[in-house]
Amino acid sequence: MMSKALERRLKLRQSLIEAAERSIAAGGLAGLKTRDLAREIGCANGAVYNLVADVDELILLVGSRTLNRLDAFLTAAESDGASSPRETLVRIAVAYCDFAAENLELWRALFEHRMTPGKPIPEWAVSEQMNLFRHIYQPLETLFPKRSAAALGVTARSLFSAVHGMVLLGLEQKLIAVPIDALREEIATIVRAMVDGLSAKRSV
Amino acid sequence: MMSKALERRLKLRQSLIEAAERSIAAGGLAGLKTRDLAREIGCANGAVYNLVADVDELILLVGSRTLNRLDAFLTAAESDGASSPRETLVRIAVAYCDFAAENLELWRALFEHRMTPGKPIPEWAVSEQMNLFRHIYQPLETLFPKRSAAALGVTARSLFSAVHGMVLLGLEQKLIAVPIDALREEIATIVRAMVDGLSAKRSV
Repeated sequence: MMSKALERRLKLRQSLIEAAERSIAAGGLAGLKTRDLAREIGCANGAVYNLVADVDELILLVGSRTLNRLDAFLTAAESDGASSPRETLVRIAVAYCDFAAENLELWRALFEHRMTPGKPIPEWAVSEQMNLFRHIYQPLETLFPKRSAAALGVTARSLFSAVHGMVLLGLEQKLIAVPIDALREEIATIVRAMVDGLSAKRSV
Repeated sequence: MMSKALERRLKLRQSLIEAAERSIAAGGLAGLKTRDLAREIGCANGAVYNLVADVDELILLVGSRTLNRLDAFLTAAESDGASSPRETLVRIAVAYCDFAAENLELWRALFEHRMTPGKPIPEWAVSEQMNLFRHIYQPLETLFPKRSAAALGVTARSLFSAVHGMVLLGLEQKLIAVPIDALREEIATIVRAMVDGLSAKRSV
């Protein structure tokens, strides 16, 4: 049975993570101040570091929640239409775009966060990130059953990076901001083109 | 004839821009401090704002130099091989990757810089950025002579964003860092696939 003290500490830790999540969602990583979080959850300033090791860990724990929601969102999109791997990849890509648009700051934080120099990203966080690639890997495996796992991994990475770039620049209010409906359509067009082009037997 | 005073001021302005460029190249936008630049070029702290309107303008002027060098780099790549539009697009994309790798911080600064809230990017800076799209637009126009300028513009934007995403995540020392030679190959593969897929008559 859990001691009352431990139970309370776990509850407080959860409150801290949720407060950090709200803060990042509202003002991005730049606005995150542990002092404000401590005040919000009603604990002393230094006590935050009894709950998490450091700010890096706190940000990674928030990232873990974001990745979990993204995972569920992509899983829902996967089964929400035609089962052809080509159209599944299109749905996954468009869902990625929708998730980013609806969770803009939390999604940005996944990519903007840098660990304190010299500190590696912990193993659990790396596997969580890698685990999401299965959404792209599986349809690719169906499309290209004869390609090696290594080759499929490279293609999955390329497809992800390409779609990520379209979402990133499309959602920026900068060089090439695009209305979300146009962006979804462009992403669908490009993903279909990439799949068709990768399937073609044309020589290099 | 230019007055001695104006001539001196223009020289000092040029020194300021070059000092800012060296600073960004070494430490990114985050490391840029006008105080350090003033000391380096030997002028008073406040005198910097007799040379440029504000830090935004200074960063845009450095960006202008980066874009000019990128433009020349892409132009050289364009004519450096087979003249087919497909292979030209591949060379442009790989050259973009090489330029980013060799000018990492200056290239990042182009995308990370945010104007002071409420201040629009000046017209001259927008046209300089837009002007670079011709490198992608022209081969696409040759490939798809029947498509409208608007449609080609959308495709150029999509291709650029997709390649940008691959370069961005590939060069990050993070989620999916990729050795540069592998990255160049992946970019070539994906650009060829996109072009082939966009050229195919397959129905959606």
